[in-house]
Amino acid sequence: MKAALDALGARFGDRIGTGAALRDQHGGGDSWHPAAPPDAVLFAQSTQEVSDALAICNAHGFPVVAFGHGSSIEGQTQAVRGGLSIDLTGMAQILRVSAQDMDATMQCGVTRQQLNTHLRDTGLFLPIDVGAHATLGGLASTRASGTMTVRHGTMRSLVMGLTVVLPDGEVIRTGGRARKSSSGYDLTALFVGAEGTLGVITELTLRLTGIPEAAQAGMFSFADIGQATQTVVEALQIGLGLNRIELLDGLQMQAINAYNGTAHPETATLMIDLTGSAAQVAADLETFADLAAENGATASPCRTPEDYNALWALRHSALYAARALRPGCLSLSTDVCVPVSDLPGIIAAIQSEIASAGVVAPLHGHVGDGNFHLVMLFDPAVPGEQARVKALNERLVGMALACGGTATGEHGVGLGKKAFMQAEHGGALALMRRLKLAVDPKGILNPGKIFDL
Amino acid sequence: MKAALDALGARFGDRIGTGAALRDQHGGGDSWHPAAPPDAVLFAQSTQEVSDALAICNAHGFPVVAFGHGSSIEGQTQAVRGGLSIDLTGMAQILRVSAQDMDATMQCGVTRQQLNTHLRDTGLFLPIDVGAHATLGGLASTRASGTMTVRHGTMRSLVMGLTVVLPDGEVIRTGGRARKSSSGYDLTALFVGAEGTLGVITELTLRLTGIPEAAQAGMFSFADIGQATQTVVEALQIGLGLNRIELLDGLQMQAINAYNGTAHPETATLMIDLTGSAAQVAADLETFADLAAENGATASPCRTPEDYNALWALRHSALYAARALRPGCLSLSTDVCVPVSDLPGIIAAIQSEIASAGVVAPLHGHVGDGNFHLVMLFDPAVPGEQARVKALNERLVGMALACGGTATGEHGVGLGKKAFMQAEHGGALALMRRLKLAVDPKGILNPGKIFDL
Repeated sequence: MKAALDALGARFGDRIGTGAALRDQHGGGDSWHPAAPPDAVLFAQSTQEVSDALAICNAHGFPVVAFGHGSSIEGQTQAVRGGLSIDLTGMAQILRVSAQDMDATMQCGVTRQQLNTHLRDTGLFLPIDVGAHATLGGLASTRASGTMTVRHGTMRSLVMGLTVVLPDGEVIRTGGRARKSSSGYDLTALFVGAEGTLGVITELTLRLTGIPEAAQAGMFSFADIGQATQTVVEALQIGLGLNRIELLDGLQMQAINAYNGTAHPETATLMIDLTGSAAQVAADLETFADLAAENGATASPCRTPEDYNALWALRHSALYAARALRPGCLSLSTDVCVPVSDLPGIIAAIQSEIASAGVVAPLHGHVGDGNFHLVMLFDPAVPGEQARVKALNERLVGMALACGGTATGEHGVGLGKKAFMQAEHGGALALMRRLKLAVDPKGILNPGKIFDL
Repeated sequence: MKAALDALGARFGDRIGTGAALRDQHGGGDSWHPAAPPDAVLFAQSTQEVSDALAICNAHGFPVVAFGHGSSIEGQTQAVRGGLSIDLTGMAQILRVSAQDMDATMQCGVTRQQLNTHLRDTGLFLPIDVGAHATLGGLASTRASGTMTVRHGTMRSLVMGLTVVLPDGEVIRTGGRARKSSSGYDLTALFVGAEGTLGVITELTLRLTGIPEAAQAGMFSFADIGQATQTVVEALQIGLGLNRIELLDGLQMQAINAYNGTAHPETATLMIDLTGSAAQVAADLETFADLAAENGATASPCRTPEDYNALWALRHSALYAARALRPGCLSLSTDVCVPVSDLPGIIAAIQSEIASAGVVAPLHGHVGDGNFHLVMLFDPAVPGEQARVKALNERLVGMALACGGTATGEHGVGLGKKAFMQAEHGGALALMRRLKLAVDPKGILNPGKIFDL
């Protein structure tokens, strides 16, 4: 370690920080996992600097964790084996936008908010809508998605190409600016979702989307969650122009009302967003309202752009509102994704177990994809509470895997979902390990995440 | 080789064929590349049989080539180092369809035509529309796409999960039935497009799409190809409900008329297909017709379902019609993909070189993605003709790479595009080789394709 820090110091001087406060700031994400500070922090300014840092760390077998805005939920940025945290927030330049081709290239530290602000005059935007203030490098590394996936896909489909620094410092480019390619192995897809265990993403080329001519949103309140999920299944089958279709249970609505000072019905709720031409959106909204009404819903359409924005701000407050239900507690925010037809059964089953266990766990999610979150609150000071929510999480993941679903739809594996990888992937997990060893033979990149070697 | 064949014979008996006719049938695809027959052919009936065959071949270092309907264009199925060709057309069972979740699981030998026929009563279909009669395993292995990519994506986005036999015979499953996942490395994407060099795909889970309420198509004839591509760029930016937008040049239209006995204008032509609700489609068609008219087009809308089907049958005759321009010749059907804004320049540049070289090379393509084909005809008996088309192909790929495009949008690399991999991928090509060695250390799977080790 001493030799590694000396070599880094020789290259970067006092830009290698080892102060306790700085290390603590880079020791965790937005999660219940215990902080694990790195031994040092580098604020990288360029791909070349990342390359130099990795070459030094690789030579010394010194771990490296890529760090953005620290919003990861499953412990992805904890430096569990120490080493160097490379803070990439200083690499925040947007390098190129092509309005004609609807794509853009940027450094990894750009946030989606920054990109969309930059794009304002082009009529384009990046259709990734997550609650967190996250860097695009981080969103790519966890294969993130958010509320608009039902229409626009995840980072898997939006990333066209990457600049990646390999563990030994070599810089490669994957993909490119073509909308599709059959040219060799899909390295872009290999790095997207690898959580920084195979390389450090320093630049991204992303496909953008035109801002739709019209958008209308509405809130639909149901007597029970089964009616809400039934409406989702029906709406997806008709092929409406759904841009978002979000489910929140009664407890989550209660939390949102308390957090935001609103007074919406505190029952199972769908928040939907329809986009397209004005005529199509109006027609689709009517169709959706009919479907929802047949399933017993009460509708609260958004009548103004302010209403529309307020609705989605409410939705994005869900995690913070959920946490505020039990101030001072921690939250295990779990994240399974299942075939949509399995949603009603699995939600009913886990909510019954949650009730029996006496756990407070509001539910919200992107149910058009079959993805939902339970924010399971626990007081770490109360014996047994953490174990209880971990057991519920394990039950939920088990149910999701049993119906062909996945342990994580968008949060990634990090530390929190590692234990489920064998059950989910079987023999494929060993192949992931072989790939890891082929790309990072010394195992310096984000060690201890996704799986142990 | 003798030992490998003996071991295969001991396991499969007379189902291992070594007759010359059978081997010749499995020695090539639909391309100008010389046939290269395998030493033996196995008609596999199950994943277990594929697994047993691979275990035997791996133990003996005996090459294996997966074979479907032999429609690959770049020499993917040529057994250039001999070995065993595994014919997978007997694995043609559709195992499961979920209308509610809009997905299905099937064996690798199912064709898309067979799947769509099977789905007829569900209101669903697989939105992959290629000209060839190909197996879904083959379409996945070349990351195929076709005419509907502009709306529905390629096999990359439609494959949700795979069953794959690894070189040593181990059977793994990748992905699953969740619409999205952040659970570990994207192994599905690794095998899609790997052209059988990393594993043999034996089952696929695919996402399906609802048959749209309405569809309307039309043909638009332009004075020159620049006006046609300009119309494409404008139509994409408005965000019309384009399901297909296909470009054909005047020579290609001449070939189509001659081949089909039709009398359409023999100028640069766009064939478009709009899908959605009846009202939306009608509105979008009008918008598109206005755009095309502003760019000087003459419109021939399809007025009946018969017209609609006839139009797309014409389009799918393009390759065969092109070849019929010079009976007895071979065709190098190249396949670059570039940013859409670069289409007009690159097409003008290459067509000027084609004209100078005196080569007959009709053009058609999926220009909504920036992907187009030139069917370069040559007489192998005439000295210099083959060299001339190969030089033009090289020029074209060079231009595509120079603007951030790719050497192949959908045909894959096989033998035909190998020479361009270093120029396209740079250092990333070495990483592909490392992955290949990690997965297939003995190099038995489809050796000599994509790159040499």
